[in-house]
Amino acid sequence: MTVYTATPRGQAAHQLFLDVQTRITDALASLDGRQSFRVDQWDRPEGGGGRSMVIEDGRVFEKGGVNVSAVYGELSEAFARELPGSGRHFFATGVSLVIHPRNPHVPTVHANFRYLEKGDGEDYTAWFGGGADLTPWILYEEDAVHFHRVWKAACDRHPVADHDRLRKWCDEYFYLPHRGETRGVGGIFFDYFGTGGERGTPADLDEVQRFVEDAAGSFLDAYLPIVERRQHTESTEAERAWQLVRRGRYVEFNLVYDRGTVFGLKTGGRIESILMSLPNLVAWKYDHQPEPGYQTALLEVLKQPRDWLA
Amino acid sequence: MTVYTATPRGQAAHQLFLDVQTRITDALASLDGRQSFRVDQWDRPEGGGGRSMVIEDGRVFEKGGVNVSAVYGELSEAFARELPGSGRHFFATGVSLVIHPRNPHVPTVHANFRYLEKGDGEDYTAWFGGGADLTPWILYEEDAVHFHRVWKAACDRHPVADHDRLRKWCDEYFYLPHRGETRGVGGIFFDYFGTGGERGTPADLDEVQRFVEDAAGSFLDAYLPIVERRQHTESTEAERAWQLVRRGRYVEFNLVYDRGTVFGLKTGGRIESILMSLPNLVAWKYDHQPEPGYQTALLEVLKQPRDWLA
Repeated sequence: MTVYTATPRGQAAHQLFLDVQTRITDALASLDGRQSFRVDQWDRPEGGGGRSMVIEDGRVFEKGGVNVSAVYGELSEAFARELPGSGRHFFATGVSLVIHPRNPHVPTVHANFRYLEKGDGEDYTAWFGGGADLTPWILYEEDAVHFHRVWKAACDRHPVADHDRLRKWCDEYFYLPHRGETRGVGGIFFDYFGTGGERGTPADLDEVQRFVEDAAGSFLDAYLPIVERRQHTESTEAERAWQLVRRGRYVEFNLVYDRGTVFGLKTGGRIESILMSLPNLVAWKYDHQPEPGYQTALLEVLKQPRDWLA
Repeated sequence: MTVYTATPRGQAAHQLFLDVQTRITDALASLDGRQSFRVDQWDRPEGGGGRSMVIEDGRVFEKGGVNVSAVYGELSEAFARELPGSGRHFFATGVSLVIHPRNPHVPTVHANFRYLEKGDGEDYTAWFGGGADLTPWILYEEDAVHFHRVWKAACDRHPVADHDRLRKWCDEYFYLPHRGETRGVGGIFFDYFGTGGERGTPADLDEVQRFVEDAAGSFLDAYLPIVERRQHTESTEAERAWQLVRRGRYVEFNLVYDRGTVFGLKTGGRIESILMSLPNLVAWKYDHQPEPGYQTALLEVLKQPRDWLA
């Protein structure tokens, strides 16, 4: 077995993501009250491994997964070429979560923060990426505003994070071209932070790292208050049916467009940790038309992304 | 508006597929007894159009779609290069169906037959492709044998169709690498029939056309007897739950690997006609393990495809 030692920054990032995973799963399980997270440690045969934590059939959370991985090895030449820097050796660590509440009034949420090193020996390139986005089924504008406010505040504390840019990047990334819709009401998204140069991202890794710590630490502030104020809202059968159909769009995005999912599936990632992002129950109806009211109201903002803080 | 006139063979193929659609939907609706097929005629802005027929919430068929299209125009250079022949103009017509019965004892089925012409003016290449595959949730070996027998008989009536080759092609095509499973118990699959040459397929288009007519006309023989003998079998909640989880694999195949689906989604096909193949209700459970019995028995044959007529 090859023993791999990440750089101190890589080790620190991995530890940060593990801490974030613990804090988030503790808070969500405590709010749920009925179910806790099942923990799966797993090894990646080619190097590294991870810790997947999954909640199913909770009072509030119908399904949710929070995964941390730290993997290393050698990239394919084709994939290495797509990434910044030279060389093919890599170390990657990240925390990734998707939470699917049962009540259609409580939005689904996704967040991911990651750190990568690529190169051979002392000559390597490193960067952070990540983001968070909110997917309501029934739109409460104040929830979208709250979510964006938290991310703006985190960005504003760090000169490397231009909130307006990260917000637009999010709307561009979480977009389903075949539906002409964004996945939800957005949030933030960023990548290659720390590489500087041609990608036009910040170059100072220390500053970027402080931003990522702050952002990852902001997730609960961004999401929990929304869950708390919507969890007891009564829902109708029509709202539930709408949620299941809209979850279908979530699946379409993840399986057709999401870079991480498709890359993971096609290159031998741990399938169950990749696909734990999929909702537990999903519906597809032929040529489903939104009903006037909360359904058309949601589609309006998905077809024409809004700046929620403007 | 550009008026496009397909070659006589193209027109005949389109008419064949429309006739097949009518015969199949008539037979399925008659068997269902509760619901008939809703008909949607649609135009493709860039040229051509289609007729989608969909059944939902039937007694036997929970969701099913049978689509015929005939479209023409100009292919992107990249896509044109992947296909046989020179030029970028094309005409394509096909019939495509996916039927999702409600009862987990009745298998899901898919079939598709298509004809393409590609080239400029008199200088064009034409070919047929297609196939049919059966996806049971609870395996009845006699059903798999029956399905394969019908396709073998159709192949055996035509020297251009080597059944053994088409059967293996089907197992290779309907394969989910990330699950290490075939989608179902197979059937037949073929492509580029009529081009001859380097793809090693038959060159005689007349003979191929007769085979496709015969195969498309064999669908009801292959599928209906199975529906008839399983439709009244009592099912348990556990069997239904298993069906919903297994339908998730169907979605994964269609959205991640199926060439037609992914190509359609990314190039502006009619979304509702493409995605009518998705089941109406689907479940994903984290790290779902099959129970010993009918669940492990099914997985065994999906992980190790069988020659059902051997």
